[in-house]
Amino acid sequence: MQKDTTPPSLPPHSGVARFMDACYRRPTDATPVWFMRQGGSCLSEYRAILQKYDVMTIAKTPELSSQVAVMPIKTFGVDAAVLYADIMLPIEGMGVSMSITPKGPVIHNPIRSLKDVAALHVTRAEEATPFVLDGIRLIRREIEGKQAIIGISGAPFTLACYMIEGGPSRDYQVAKALMYGQPEVWDALMQKITDVICDYVKAQVSAGADVIQIFDSWVGSLSPSVYRRFVLPYSQRVFAAIKQVGAPSIHFGTGTAALLEAMVEAGGDVQSVDWRINLDEAWKRIGPERGIQGNLDPTVMHTSWPTIEREMQDVLQRAAGRPGHIFNFGHAVLVPTDEDLLRRLVEAVHEATAR
Amino acid sequence: MQKDTTPPSLPPHSGVARFMDACYRRPTDATPVWFMRQGGSCLSEYRAILQKYDVMTIAKTPELSSQVAVMPIKTFGVDAAVLYADIMLPIEGMGVSMSITPKGPVIHNPIRSLKDVAALHVTRAEEATPFVLDGIRLIRREIEGKQAIIGISGAPFTLACYMIEGGPSRDYQVAKALMYGQPEVWDALMQKITDVICDYVKAQVSAGADVIQIFDSWVGSLSPSVYRRFVLPYSQRVFAAIKQVGAPSIHFGTGTAALLEAMVEAGGDVQSVDWRINLDEAWKRIGPERGIQGNLDPTVMHTSWPTIEREMQDVLQRAAGRPGHIFNFGHAVLVPTDEDLLRRLVEAVHEATAR
Repeated sequence: MQKDTTPPSLPPHSGVARFMDACYRRPTDATPVWFMRQGGSCLSEYRAILQKYDVMTIAKTPELSSQVAVMPIKTFGVDAAVLYADIMLPIEGMGVSMSITPKGPVIHNPIRSLKDVAALHVTRAEEATPFVLDGIRLIRREIEGKQAIIGISGAPFTLACYMIEGGPSRDYQVAKALMYGQPEVWDALMQKITDVICDYVKAQVSAGADVIQIFDSWVGSLSPSVYRRFVLPYSQRVFAAIKQVGAPSIHFGTGTAALLEAMVEAGGDVQSVDWRINLDEAWKRIGPERGIQGNLDPTVMHTSWPTIEREMQDVLQRAAGRPGHIFNFGHAVLVPTDEDLLRRLVEAVHEATAR
Repeated sequence: MQKDTTPPSLPPHSGVARFMDACYRRPTDATPVWFMRQGGSCLSEYRAILQKYDVMTIAKTPELSSQVAVMPIKTFGVDAAVLYADIMLPIEGMGVSMSITPKGPVIHNPIRSLKDVAALHVTRAEEATPFVLDGIRLIRREIEGKQAIIGISGAPFTLACYMIEGGPSRDYQVAKALMYGQPEVWDALMQKITDVICDYVKAQVSAGADVIQIFDSWVGSLSPSVYRRFVLPYSQRVFAAIKQVGAPSIHFGTGTAALLEAMVEAGGDVQSVDWRINLDEAWKRIGPERGIQGNLDPTVMHTSWPTIEREMQDVLQRAAGRPGHIFNFGHAVLVPTDEDLLRRLVEAVHEATAR
């Protein structure tokens, strides 16, 4: 399905208009806001659901996942709902045996050889992850086009690291050693993962996602030259696939201060940056042709309102009202974070940027 | 003691001449090499000592610590011996109750208030850590001025984070919230720590350290503007103190691609960079007035020699034979790393850069 992402029927002054206009660097009535993991454990309403179901059950039950996805809209007043799904979900159907643990997904049969890669299937999202697409359709019905819907996926590099390491890792030693030392295994794996991700994100857009955020969460562990050699060509295919179906995309990473130019080359309409770089400097580096997402340090939420407001103003002053800014933390909301402070932050960003 | 760090009596083509000349960006007969944690668990000879003594006992027994410090010289052929000491050692005498665990030091009475800070003592190194200084004197006697001796200390920010968090931390949430929200407590703590570090590093130089490396291991979690506000003035005092006693210094951090200009402003003759930035780009950023240390990805050591050599050559080509390069990993040697490969790497760097 080809999507027209800026239909003339967008409700004016709605979250969706704000969000989509920012993605395309058009002026907005206020700066759009959302938070990574806004539907996570910082929400008391979500914690209540977690008493009854584990995260994998929630992610695979559209009625539950869509419910969690829309909660932050009324609780915090954010401008977008984000798909409730682990960024590793697309790889499960590839023949990878995976459990989601409190520390993140664990892979029981990590990929280490060409034979392992050959055994992986390239799946279609409609067959492998229908619950994700049904979840998006239910969110769409719930929010009636008033807010944007953000679909998500892990990027090829981050997914490949997970599949090779077999679980969370601090240094990605096994994955990076394979990448450096067995480039043919790396390429075969990255190609297959990229095929799966491309179909997965296109299916999300068809199901009703307005924008896709690609999480290359671990890419900050690479130098620009290594990124260009081992990551960029694959990520580029993912962003091209999203563009092909007419949706804008957000390119996320952390610790990417040296990588920004290379990541922008890979693609994305909006580059997400964390607090390790000042937003004005980051925007200068990525150039005026891209929007920017970020970049309050979520740690600031553990202080009191005057400090939060000061740091929020610092971010907004560096954005300087230029079209194309999506306000967010540089990374996920910390747990715990006070719900009232989050609500107040959304309100304050909207007020401070109203025009 | 005022030290003349470039005495005419430096043995030509010795590790110490190579190392000190590189610190001052003078031409060398070959690029000097050392590794962070070269005296650590990658050394079988060290692991044998660990069977008998715990790390704190080794660090506090000059006969043992000096023995570990000189091992890598004959095992790997590196150009410098580095003090065997945890970077947190200088704070123990301040009245902080600390244990060194396998995961790092743990502080039993973390600092959270002005009252906590007031209770801290500003200690003299000769009284609080005499074993460190005696260790340096013994290393000096052992290596007879043939290799450089690197003294070390944590930087004020990293030490303050530890004292506030109470132990290893992923996000430094407590420390950063205190920094943002209670700047007066932060300043009082940073001032006291800085006083202690200044005396500690000066005493190390007096005892015979040729160069001091300041580890600001966690500073990559800050933006440049936050660094300038909360860290730079204190680090600046430390580097000025080292310069005052006539020794060169190395400024270490990881994930600092956005911070390089600000760190250079704080001080250090040589800026250490990790593999997340390409060495040529980093050198352009820090300017021609500084040396550079780095920056092979230690993960590469988990591949085979041809890959290691290729990646080593990449680093050397980016350094392009300019005076002022000290070859190192971007961070500590990984455990395990093959001893033979480390020895071969040192040899290959020396050979490839011989002039």
